[in-house]
Amino acid sequence: MNVGKAASRTLRALSKAPARTHVSLSVRAASQCAAPGSSSSSHDRPHFPCVDAHAVRESRIISSRSVSSTPAASSSSGPEPPYARPNPTSYNVYHHTRPLPLVYTDPLPSFDIAYETWGTLSPSKDNVILLHTGLSASSHAASTELNPAEGWWEKFIGPGKALDTNQFFIICTNVLGGCYGSTGPSSLDPSTGEPYATRFPILSIFDMVRAQFCLLDHLGIDRLYASVGSSMGAMQSLAAGWLHPERVGKVVSISGTARSSPSAIAMRFAQRAVLMADPNWKNGFYYDGLPPHAGMKLARQIATITYRSGPEWDMRFGRKFRPLPESEPQRSDKPRTPALCPDFLIETYLDHQGEEFCLKYDANSLIYISKAMDLFDLTAPALSELRLDPPAPRSGPPPLPPSLSAHPSSPAHAQYHHLLSHSKSHPPPANPPLHLPDLAAGLRPLSNTPTLILGVQSDILFPVEQQREVADALRITGNQMVSYYELGGVWGHDTFLLDVQNVGGAIRGFLS
Amino acid sequence: MNVGKAASRTLRALSKAPARTHVSLSVRAASQCAAPGSSSSSHDRPHFPCVDAHAVRESRIISSRSVSSTPAASSSSGPEPPYARPNPTSYNVYHHTRPLPLVYTDPLPSFDIAYETWGTLSPSKDNVILLHTGLSASSHAASTELNPAEGWWEKFIGPGKALDTNQFFIICTNVLGGCYGSTGPSSLDPSTGEPYATRFPILSIFDMVRAQFCLLDHLGIDRLYASVGSSMGAMQSLAAGWLHPERVGKVVSISGTARSSPSAIAMRFAQRAVLMADPNWKNGFYYDGLPPHAGMKLARQIATITYRSGPEWDMRFGRKFRPLPESEPQRSDKPRTPALCPDFLIETYLDHQGEEFCLKYDANSLIYISKAMDLFDLTAPALSELRLDPPAPRSGPPPLPPSLSAHPSSPAHAQYHHLLSHSKSHPPPANPPLHLPDLAAGLRPLSNTPTLILGVQSDILFPVEQQREVADALRITGNQMVSYYELGGVWGHDTFLLDVQNVGGAIRGFLS
Repeated sequence: MNVGKAASRTLRALSKAPARTHVSLSVRAASQCAAPGSSSSSHDRPHFPCVDAHAVRESRIISSRSVSSTPAASSSSGPEPPYARPNPTSYNVYHHTRPLPLVYTDPLPSFDIAYETWGTLSPSKDNVILLHTGLSASSHAASTELNPAEGWWEKFIGPGKALDTNQFFIICTNVLGGCYGSTGPSSLDPSTGEPYATRFPILSIFDMVRAQFCLLDHLGIDRLYASVGSSMGAMQSLAAGWLHPERVGKVVSISGTARSSPSAIAMRFAQRAVLMADPNWKNGFYYDGLPPHAGMKLARQIATITYRSGPEWDMRFGRKFRPLPESEPQRSDKPRTPALCPDFLIETYLDHQGEEFCLKYDANSLIYISKAMDLFDLTAPALSELRLDPPAPRSGPPPLPPSLSAHPSSPAHAQYHHLLSHSKSHPPPANPPLHLPDLAAGLRPLSNTPTLILGVQSDILFPVEQQREVADALRITGNQMVSYYELGGVWGHDTFLLDVQNVGGAIRGFLS
Repeated sequence: MNVGKAASRTLRALSKAPARTHVSLSVRAASQCAAPGSSSSSHDRPHFPCVDAHAVRESRIISSRSVSSTPAASSSSGPEPPYARPNPTSYNVYHHTRPLPLVYTDPLPSFDIAYETWGTLSPSKDNVILLHTGLSASSHAASTELNPAEGWWEKFIGPGKALDTNQFFIICTNVLGGCYGSTGPSSLDPSTGEPYATRFPILSIFDMVRAQFCLLDHLGIDRLYASVGSSMGAMQSLAAGWLHPERVGKVVSISGTARSSPSAIAMRFAQRAVLMADPNWKNGFYYDGLPPHAGMKLARQIATITYRSGPEWDMRFGRKFRPLPESEPQRSDKPRTPALCPDFLIETYLDHQGEEFCLKYDANSLIYISKAMDLFDLTAPALSELRLDPPAPRSGPPPLPPSLSAHPSSPAHAQYHHLLSHSKSHPPPANPPLHLPDLAAGLRPLSNTPTLILGVQSDILFPVEQQREVADALRITGNQMVSYYELGGVWGHDTFLLDVQNVGGAIRGFLS
């Protein structure tokens, strides 16, 4: 195996570089950059630490692997991808031994679903909330006894929080196709004993949700109090309510969509393209070699641009530069010399986000799951293409909160009805999209399901127009129980991770 | 030299692939993609023509070079990068033999500027319009006798057009740092006889404009009737008016900015990062080997996302898929199998845009010029950092159109004053950006220069907020001659290339 040849070549080159460059590289490889043309001898070839960083990382992976292959060091937290050493003691795994039908291909013969839970399941099992994750999250939404590390929605889950563990039993799964304990492209294909890689079947959001319902069946949970999700989780949340109107009491969709738009597809396509162009990707068959870490870093940089917003960056970074280390002396007769490697704070921020992520997640999982997001479309013609038979909408009134079933005149109940009337006050769209009637026709199974749609005005990936169209389409189906909120603020798509006050408050009000 | 090793390895692998795949690859390499998991034998490794396309392109470059090295075939139009064979018979070249002072570094000892002209220079040389280009354009804005090919602004230049050749003498240059005849990183460094590569000095927009004024000096043109530009050309246009208030009669800035925002920097950073990560980039020293064509393709895909708009793609592509070729039979019992390579029309569009561009432009030029755009900032503190002494604003009334100097009561003159009063009716900003006072202080040299600011509401790269802030800052300087337009429409940033009716009309009105 010739992995690391490029890395060692670059390291050899670096060892010939002047001492100053070498020293600074070893300290902060990704944050500095030689300034072309500013060298005292203009005939030296400039160095680019942000480019060398890829080879430096590669050599770190290789040396970490050779260390961790000795038994004593096997628990070292080196840069080995976490999906290469799953830790099933920190979460539960449900192993499904029967085939899972898939929308696009032949069934998956068997699969695992990793999951974690919070709160207590009521004796009648009527207090279950299924929480769906975004693209790259694990089942670890909040700390547990098994895993005390902070989860990705830590501030939203717990006693008295948005998902109140005094009242609800919350289940979060790693998504089918993921790499944190659930079956995905990095899992071993039982028929070959090797990782599936790109032999893994193309997934749809519906497949992911069906796998979750296999877990619910296994747990004896017939009916969810609510299905809750943000971003891709919102797609799953809507899909859950669509597939099983009788089994899903309420649907919460935060910063999601019912139909991926071409511009969101474009942004995810750009990420897949840089990833698949990484020579380490090897058509997806990289599990016995080096992962496509450089492509993953580049893909995450692009993704990060779509997760936040310009106004936030204006406030947070503006046009400020990184602080200059002493190893980069500047001329007194000239302005600061700009560098081609990250130099503005916004650049070092993106570089850092990419660097942090590039070894944490499986590249093939990113490719498959982002593709499933692109394919998501709840308009009637698209559903008909998928040969999905729309189930009948649920009959009867919406469920009351479990703690209030016997007290319909309590204050919380009044608040709930207030939310419903609030939702009715949302004005009709001024410029309805052409596909709105098709979307309304597709959403008919959800016409009697209380649904919370929440969007953020600074979100460029799932813009508010798409939130409005989901709410409008649901209302066209006759759904009288649509709650709709638009948040301001500058956090863009990531608002669902950050705005505990407003996102959490809306969820709490809707669920209570 | 071991260039092409990867290409030949992939080609060897392809020759072992089943005949169907091989044939389809050779016909339309970039548009098809094997569907993972859909293979009749699930143990075959899937193929990815969109990934193989990089190697196929590489082998095409290699074979084209070996052909064109024989004298008889040297004029073949193979995929050899055009900057590798400049054609100075199709444009004029001004060779400047004295050093050009640069903002950030030591002077450039000498340089070339390629330029083309349209119309006739008046005897008093008072009818000159300097047209500035966007990032990657050549001086070929419109067809000429020397080069009858259509130019990038063909419909805006000519008799009776927005830039009326019956009235004006129009000059367009390839920008300093470019690769279409002007000196840039691909040019030979006279001190080494090798291409500058990344030894080329970091450029500022001001350097580019100063090089243009060296050309004007050479042509004996003391004063421009107007400086006109779109996108990066708008930055240059503002910089020209700022550097030389007495030499620039009017300024036209279309879809530009006076201060690059962090989100625009982020999008250009992502492009530079994918380019610099291409193993062919070799720290910029690729001129004796293969160009980083895969990185260029990926960078162009990202750029294209910023040039258009979601609403346009909704209308143009929606969620439609590419037509399926016969070589990709589908199952009758399942929906169409999605592919991981470009499959939605929006994906094939981006793929195509990247493929078309990746050998047309020099990667180092893209890196240097996009960096110059990032660095552009006309706020007073930033200008002070650059040690640029602000010149005094021009004194006296604005110039009249050359054909109207003697007829101040003509209808065209009245229309001109109508435009000025229109500009005054623009309402004050509701939420002025924090840097607005600094920008106004920076723009003081333009306080007596008639200026047209035009923006497009669907532009995500240079959003209308940035157009408004330039107009507002100019008004704060006391400039009573700011014309301001916002266009609707769905073409985003590219509107300046497409909307002849509205962009052209505003320019014509302002210039007349």
